[in-house]
Amino acid sequence: MVEPKSYAQPTRRPPSHPRAEESRTRIMSEARRLFAQRGFDGANIREIAEKAGVTHTLIRYHFGSKEQLWKDVVTDMFRRLDREVSGPETEKLKYETVDDLRIFLRRYVKYCAKNPDQIRIMFHESIAGGDRLDWMVKYILKSHQTLTPFFRHLMDKGQLPDVFLVSLFYAVSTICQIPFAFSTTIKKLYGVDMQSEAATEAHVDAVLAILLRDAPDADLKRPALPAWTKI
Amino acid sequence: MVEPKSYAQPTRRPPSHPRAEESRTRIMSEARRLFAQRGFDGANIREIAEKAGVTHTLIRYHFGSKEQLWKDVVTDMFRRLDREVSGPETEKLKYETVDDLRIFLRRYVKYCAKNPDQIRIMFHESIAGGDRLDWMVKYILKSHQTLTPFFRHLMDKGQLPDVFLVSLFYAVSTICQIPFAFSTTIKKLYGVDMQSEAATEAHVDAVLAILLRDAPDADLKRPALPAWTKI
Repeated sequence: MVEPKSYAQPTRRPPSHPRAEESRTRIMSEARRLFAQRGFDGANIREIAEKAGVTHTLIRYHFGSKEQLWKDVVTDMFRRLDREVSGPETEKLKYETVDDLRIFLRRYVKYCAKNPDQIRIMFHESIAGGDRLDWMVKYILKSHQTLTPFFRHLMDKGQLPDVFLVSLFYAVSTICQIPFAFSTTIKKLYGVDMQSEAATEAHVDAVLAILLRDAPDADLKRPALPAWTKI
Repeated sequence: MVEPKSYAQPTRRPPSHPRAEESRTRIMSEARRLFAQRGFDGANIREIAEKAGVTHTLIRYHFGSKEQLWKDVVTDMFRRLDREVSGPETEKLKYETVDDLRIFLRRYVKYCAKNPDQIRIMFHESIAGGDRLDWMVKYILKSHQTLTPFFRHLMDKGQLPDVFLVSLFYAVSTICQIPFAFSTTIKKLYGVDMQSEAATEAHVDAVLAILLRDAPDADLKRPALPAWTKI
């Protein structure tokens, strides 16, 4: 491993400098993409450096190791998720009423549409079930702890079906996530770009109808589907 | 690549022999497990050979290449899925009524509980979106083509919500699959063994309640959950 200090040059700027921040952001963005596509083992630092247009050494300087880069990517993802779904501190989502759930679901679907790589990284580690999941599980647990009393409350009021909590939790979260994690498959099967606004809105509409039995929006323009889907 | 014929010994038995069949089955079973856990690139033939208690050369003899082994594993998985979910030829599931959907969902959840590695392999390739997905997509398409007229019919009758077909398809399939694909995460978070009969039955009950609004079974003994999930 490169020791950042011993390699520091007089011209090297600390990470707080705008240019250093900018290259750090670019590294994280390429790392997220490659970790998502290939998993932790399949991604390599040299390729991340190349795609980000920086040197391998600069990645070592900013992050130390591939593992630390992965951890920083994941921490950043969960922070962003919390910020965008729960909303800003002054108008934080209350997680109380069924209307709060509607807001949550709409925001979460849109978040997944914009950040499918986060879902893919979570899927990789959830399947692999190793040390990285052990490390990441604190973030997953936190979201489950936030949502559990909320779901219990809506189950008690008959607004969510009163089923095994684990099943409900995974049903709600993966219904929102899955078409974006699998957007390549959907493109191949149906020719639909799931990240388009029309598909994302059609998915929000479907999630609300499936989970809450809200009436589907008859005016919504859904993406066109191939002939084999018609009967 | 080893050329099977040039290496063939007088004592080597053709694959139709019970012992050759048995080692072929053992190789496929270990391959499925490793492809599921690590993805195609992360799995290696030498480790599969070691776990299966056979030589590396025998895998080459039976399958030719790692890619062919992967293809044979996937083909076998989809065949088994079709056989177990659609049922035997003489009493094939009709995919007509909402009761057929109940039978389908119950069988599919139980299939996923018994074969989580199939789900994991599909997830890996759906995320990676490369050549192996291109090859596998024919099987996925076939299942979508079987289910699409069925879902349309139930949507027309108001027995499934009339939503964007792609969303409905992925909602139905992943609600069934996900807790088994992520069983390691669930074990860490909730201490629940998803593949146990109690958890699998609780999940069937939840799937029917969420998708069809069937009343949850009040007599069902659900797996115990940790204290933090209580409110």
